[in-house]
Amino acid sequence: MSELRKDPITGRWVIISTERRKRPTDFLLEPVEIVPDPSCPFCEGHEQMTPRELLAIRQSGSGPDLAGWTLRVIPNQYPVLRVEGTLDRQGEGLFDKMNGIGAHEVIVESPRHEVTLASMDDRGIEDVLWAAHERIQDLKRDRRFRYIIIFKNHGVAAGASLAHSHSQLIALPIVPREVRDEVDGARAHFQQKERCVFCDILRQETGEGKRLIAENADIVAISPYAPRFPFETWLMPRRHQSHFEDTPRHEVASLARMLGDILRRMNRALEAPPYNLLVHSAPVSETAADYYHWHVEIIPKLTKVAGFEWATGFYVNPTSPEEASQVLRDARG
Amino acid sequence: MSELRKDPITGRWVIISTERRKRPTDFLLEPVEIVPDPSCPFCEGHEQMTPRELLAIRQSGSGPDLAGWTLRVIPNQYPVLRVEGTLDRQGEGLFDKMNGIGAHEVIVESPRHEVTLASMDDRGIEDVLWAAHERIQDLKRDRRFRYIIIFKNHGVAAGASLAHSHSQLIALPIVPREVRDEVDGARAHFQQKERCVFCDILRQETGEGKRLIAENADIVAISPYAPRFPFETWLMPRRHQSHFEDTPRHEVASLARMLGDILRRMNRALEAPPYNLLVHSAPVSETAADYYHWHVEIIPKLTKVAGFEWATGFYVNPTSPEEASQVLRDARG
Repeated sequence: MSELRKDPITGRWVIISTERRKRPTDFLLEPVEIVPDPSCPFCEGHEQMTPRELLAIRQSGSGPDLAGWTLRVIPNQYPVLRVEGTLDRQGEGLFDKMNGIGAHEVIVESPRHEVTLASMDDRGIEDVLWAAHERIQDLKRDRRFRYIIIFKNHGVAAGASLAHSHSQLIALPIVPREVRDEVDGARAHFQQKERCVFCDILRQETGEGKRLIAENADIVAISPYAPRFPFETWLMPRRHQSHFEDTPRHEVASLARMLGDILRRMNRALEAPPYNLLVHSAPVSETAADYYHWHVEIIPKLTKVAGFEWATGFYVNPTSPEEASQVLRDARG
Repeated sequence: MSELRKDPITGRWVIISTERRKRPTDFLLEPVEIVPDPSCPFCEGHEQMTPRELLAIRQSGSGPDLAGWTLRVIPNQYPVLRVEGTLDRQGEGLFDKMNGIGAHEVIVESPRHEVTLASMDDRGIEDVLWAAHERIQDLKRDRRFRYIIIFKNHGVAAGASLAHSHSQLIALPIVPREVRDEVDGARAHFQQKERCVFCDILRQETGEGKRLIAENADIVAISPYAPRFPFETWLMPRRHQSHFEDTPRHEVASLARMLGDILRRMNRALEAPPYNLLVHSAPVSETAADYYHWHVEIIPKLTKVAGFEWATGFYVNPTSPEEASQVLRDARG
């Protein structure tokens, strides 16, 4: 029989559907293939095709916006928000608006077109995460920004418009509603129990083990209890910390190792699926020290469509997290 | 410049992106094509392929589960929730769950495979809406159900698994979070202003006209101020009413006329797009008489993917509602 499960952070209920139960082979898997592209603006040697770099990891002696790098951060050429200008808030009758002030940056993760996070070495992934960390530290000095989203779309089906491996960063003058809900839910849990809900989850999941995928010194990978999507996976630091950008380097290194491991497990078990990756962190402008706990969510895109779920916020998931974590535990390299 | 706009009901901010501005012809339009299917279980003559009907509109003299009908309501053959059993709530350490009690029904909208809501006459659409109305009235007597979702997925890209025109109804033992947020937001507006936020929207939109698509005696069609999706369209009753199932027949008839008109405009302007349609109504178990106002949302599926939007609840919309409503105003038949 199907089960309704409640996410303890947001209070969202999901259906884990047994009638529509799906194992990995039941999905219409569409492996991400990276096709060579001579006009790719992110490839080494094409630095002039992008805006000027904001940050790069370079061989000593190589100049900015020239070859000789292993990672670059650049402004997005087609930004959804722009840095220039003052934030102007206005009413329009009943409605509220503000102008599109923000920042939209791209982390080009490798000079080589065909490399992915899963095929990169751990140090390469660490550099990507550390670059995000550095950029947040820089951008949060701008007091107009309330939240900074770090995300990655891998594969066309997950929304990537360029195949060359990259992540994105968007600094916003508002806190998005999903973030607000999560932060508010975590605060309510803390007010009631004087404990962080994420620490409670970690304690239960590492104790029971049935939704645990892998763990290392600093990071635990689980299938969450009430996942919206099949094979949704969370990477959580053991040590309580509200803001990703305050994490010390050695924890970022542990996260990099775990992230590479999990992505390779997904590649093996789910045939190199498209995915979205999202860093959940407390709003840069808020102290959420006691009750919020940053983490990373990875959502492989396995179901072709999701009409009514997206529209209602009510999710039907055909794969239980116990089954998903078993599959990913077994997919160890 | 892009603009951040706030939905006055939920408080959700969206970006209306001018950098990524899209007119109808800029989308990769994929018209829904309905291919004949001799084994379609919803076609007239195939009644034995479905569970027994719960409701039908039939020619006098024709018996249940036989030919001779214009509309049938049947239980879903692969329900996400089942009616049988008692609702059993359980804790699991930190977590909460309940068994999958609910109802999942299908409204087969026409005996003919190739008919769509847009090609049907107004009376046919009225019958579909009235059947939903009747089924809610019946299901709400079951005290286990807190919310009843009425929705339609049109086209494979919008999640339809069968091409034959149908809508679905899911009765849930919980109120989904998106609904909760909308109801709570509407209540907060009422507490502050002693007015319904939807009535306020209607007043501003019919007064200004710049996001107004069409109106008749009872129903107003608008592009909402802060739409998550391009060409998202709301059909709202002029008369304040919290629950769809309490709407009198003549208003349902007006809704049917407006729905057919809007779907035909979308077919003309957007080349027969796949879409999701959703009835937003107050939870069946709650009195929300003063502050909630039922309405219908139609979301054509024009963007192929939406990675980061879905994951963060933060939406970037490349078509402003002023432009979308202009296009749909001009697409009058």
